[in-house]
Amino acid sequence: MHAFIIGIGDELTLGQTVDTNSSWLSEQLMALGIPVLAHLVVPDDRAATAAAIRQAAAAAELTIVTGGLGPTQDDLTRDALADAAGAPLEERPDALAAVAAWFKHHQRTMSASNRVQALCPRGSDWLDNDCGTAPGLRVRIGQATVYAFPGVPREMKSMFLRHLAPTLAAQSGRVILTRTIRTFGEGESQLGERLGELMRRGGNPVVGTTVSLGVVSVRVRSEASTLAEAEAALQATVAEIQTRLGELIYGADDDTLARAVGRLLKERGMTLATAESCTGGGVAAQITDIPGASAWFRGGWVVYSNALKTSALGVPTELIAKDGSVSESVARAMAAGALARGGADCALALTGIAGPDGGTVDKPVGTVWIALAMPGAGGPPVITAQRVLFPGDRAAVRDRAGKTALNMLRQALLRGGGA
Amino acid sequence: MHAFIIGIGDELTLGQTVDTNSSWLSEQLMALGIPVLAHLVVPDDRAATAAAIRQAAAAAELTIVTGGLGPTQDDLTRDALADAAGAPLEERPDALAAVAAWFKHHQRTMSASNRVQALCPRGSDWLDNDCGTAPGLRVRIGQATVYAFPGVPREMKSMFLRHLAPTLAAQSGRVILTRTIRTFGEGESQLGERLGELMRRGGNPVVGTTVSLGVVSVRVRSEASTLAEAEAALQATVAEIQTRLGELIYGADDDTLARAVGRLLKERGMTLATAESCTGGGVAAQITDIPGASAWFRGGWVVYSNALKTSALGVPTELIAKDGSVSESVARAMAAGALARGGADCALALTGIAGPDGGTVDKPVGTVWIALAMPGAGGPPVITAQRVLFPGDRAAVRDRAGKTALNMLRQALLRGGGA
Repeated sequence: MHAFIIGIGDELTLGQTVDTNSSWLSEQLMALGIPVLAHLVVPDDRAATAAAIRQAAAAAELTIVTGGLGPTQDDLTRDALADAAGAPLEERPDALAAVAAWFKHHQRTMSASNRVQALCPRGSDWLDNDCGTAPGLRVRIGQATVYAFPGVPREMKSMFLRHLAPTLAAQSGRVILTRTIRTFGEGESQLGERLGELMRRGGNPVVGTTVSLGVVSVRVRSEASTLAEAEAALQATVAEIQTRLGELIYGADDDTLARAVGRLLKERGMTLATAESCTGGGVAAQITDIPGASAWFRGGWVVYSNALKTSALGVPTELIAKDGSVSESVARAMAAGALARGGADCALALTGIAGPDGGTVDKPVGTVWIALAMPGAGGPPVITAQRVLFPGDRAAVRDRAGKTALNMLRQALLRGGGA
Repeated sequence: MHAFIIGIGDELTLGQTVDTNSSWLSEQLMALGIPVLAHLVVPDDRAATAAAIRQAAAAAELTIVTGGLGPTQDDLTRDALADAAGAPLEERPDALAAVAAWFKHHQRTMSASNRVQALCPRGSDWLDNDCGTAPGLRVRIGQATVYAFPGVPREMKSMFLRHLAPTLAAQSGRVILTRTIRTFGEGESQLGERLGELMRRGGNPVVGTTVSLGVVSVRVRSEASTLAEAEAALQATVAEIQTRLGELIYGADDDTLARAVGRLLKERGMTLATAESCTGGGVAAQITDIPGASAWFRGGWVVYSNALKTSALGVPTELIAKDGSVSESVARAMAAGALARGGADCALALTGIAGPDGGTVDKPVGTVWIALAMPGAGGPPVITAQRVLFPGDRAAVRDRAGKTALNMLRQALLRGGGA
């Protein structure tokens, strides 16, 4: 079985609302082993909606339509379903009673316009809505079954889970499992070469990559007739990916670099402090986004002015005068200052030119110095530093700089730094 | 002219990523007076992509495809475009040079796989990408022009705005102008009452409200046959909205509260420092997101641990022991410390319980103390503080707390604080 999802609404094709319903439904269907062929979004237009339903019903055994079931003049899904099924609309007394009962239960007055919500194409079934006034519809068109749900996400989700998911779970002979592996530090093409034949088209499990904000994600999708088979194949592929990508992997699914760093610090009983100039608190904000970060994060400094670099972190004014505030020496001094004053085991410092102004020939926009202070083996702290040139606009430079710094710390911890 | 938008990617039909590109493109096209017939999303499949392109090119004069232009085996938009156009792929030396130049400029090694990004259907034009490696494509199919852009939103947006928007603006005969007015401090229904008849359906300009992350936005859309007419009607409506909403308005379009605060500080020649506990650097990060913020932002402290509140900002340990770290006295001491140590004219301090843990009966999750230090009239600084209880999860509490703090400063500056 395949599915086709249709979203109806002017607000979608006008770009005022992002279609999250199709995405949510796809995730649910995928978990039930039903591949989604396409999402199609059309405006509140009877002919366009009927054409979309015909296209979907010809392509897939299961079609889900969301939106256009309200009581107003721009709600045309009922009419379009009737057109596509070639069946007239008729008022169902039991559906009308259900709409009226909803209003009574919620102590509201039913408008005359709500009466249209009881109209159903002849031969269709109506589906009760426990969160709103609009009943859903189930219509047979050729070999396909078409479900229509309201566009309000809460109502749509509840109706999918009550009216459709149980049936599909019972019918489905396939199990699909997915895992997303998150990596940082290499580009998509280099990763693709490491993954090689794992990414061949039509394989099972299927392996694919996507990039977002510097993070390259490796998606694995395993399909089988039993959960055990699907799970075994998924595990084997994930293990092979782990072998090939090694330390580039920082986590899976919703993981972030900050979470990965937090886990490692917690395991080692170590703490962190930050000193930020160009990222301006962005690294600390990512860290403190994690519940319980106080167990391993002491705090940080946002030393945006040079005066504060000196007064708050003890960066010598001579260094700033001699090397400039974006320099290896200043990054190292910031890390040393944050380590000592934060009372932490590790410290990260960033100073750079996020742009759009402030770049020079020697230090173009995107230039960032990152310094990392780690405990030395029995001796004083060891500070390492690297210079990176990030592409993109101000937001991209700040984002990538923060991630690169967290990744530097992650790799140092993995390699036994401070262990 | 009509448009048809296609999104390509397994991550979309698997429900792992929400398709925001189609929505953004629709909004842009709408502003140019070009109605969007449909959004169609298909997986990384050559035949499905080619079929989608054929369907779109038959339905609309303009088709925009996003995604599938990367260097890996699951990037198949180039092949599908060639199939739909009935033209073979050929390597373009100038496109290859552009891809190679990107890697050189960013001091990275180009993989052999990136070479495929220089393949173009015969007779097509390639479009340079100033934010990434993937060139775009422009292909003529029948009466339609098909544009293909990368799926990475930043790259797609930049390429649309450079390669397509200027041409479309020149061709269009209708003028639609929009303005979004941003407010903070009152709910959507209260704002709706203030706006009254301005929000009537079917009016021109049309006025509507939406809420996102505590910000209530008022959208104005003015349509006319000439720019002068559309502009005059827009200005008149915006002026009336400004009269009705007054200080609740902090800006328009892409403005943020931090930008509004920055403008006011700059006008007054004043500077700011921050001291954050629960927001963990989020306020400083929002501020330093603004180019040129160094003119009015000195820097900040992320005093996540109590020890650091004392050592870095001079908060007396007795206060913390007596009142707890989430208290009026600690918030005031943090603001005083940041003001003095930051050498700034104003300081904002936040301490609270972002959750999910750490709440008590007296101080439930969501409790935040915000203190604001401003110059006194000839005397010492004046510190004001307020306690707010924010609803929602950790991210929502942190976000609303930061915005409320910035809004407190904004209103104090507007009312002449420190003037």
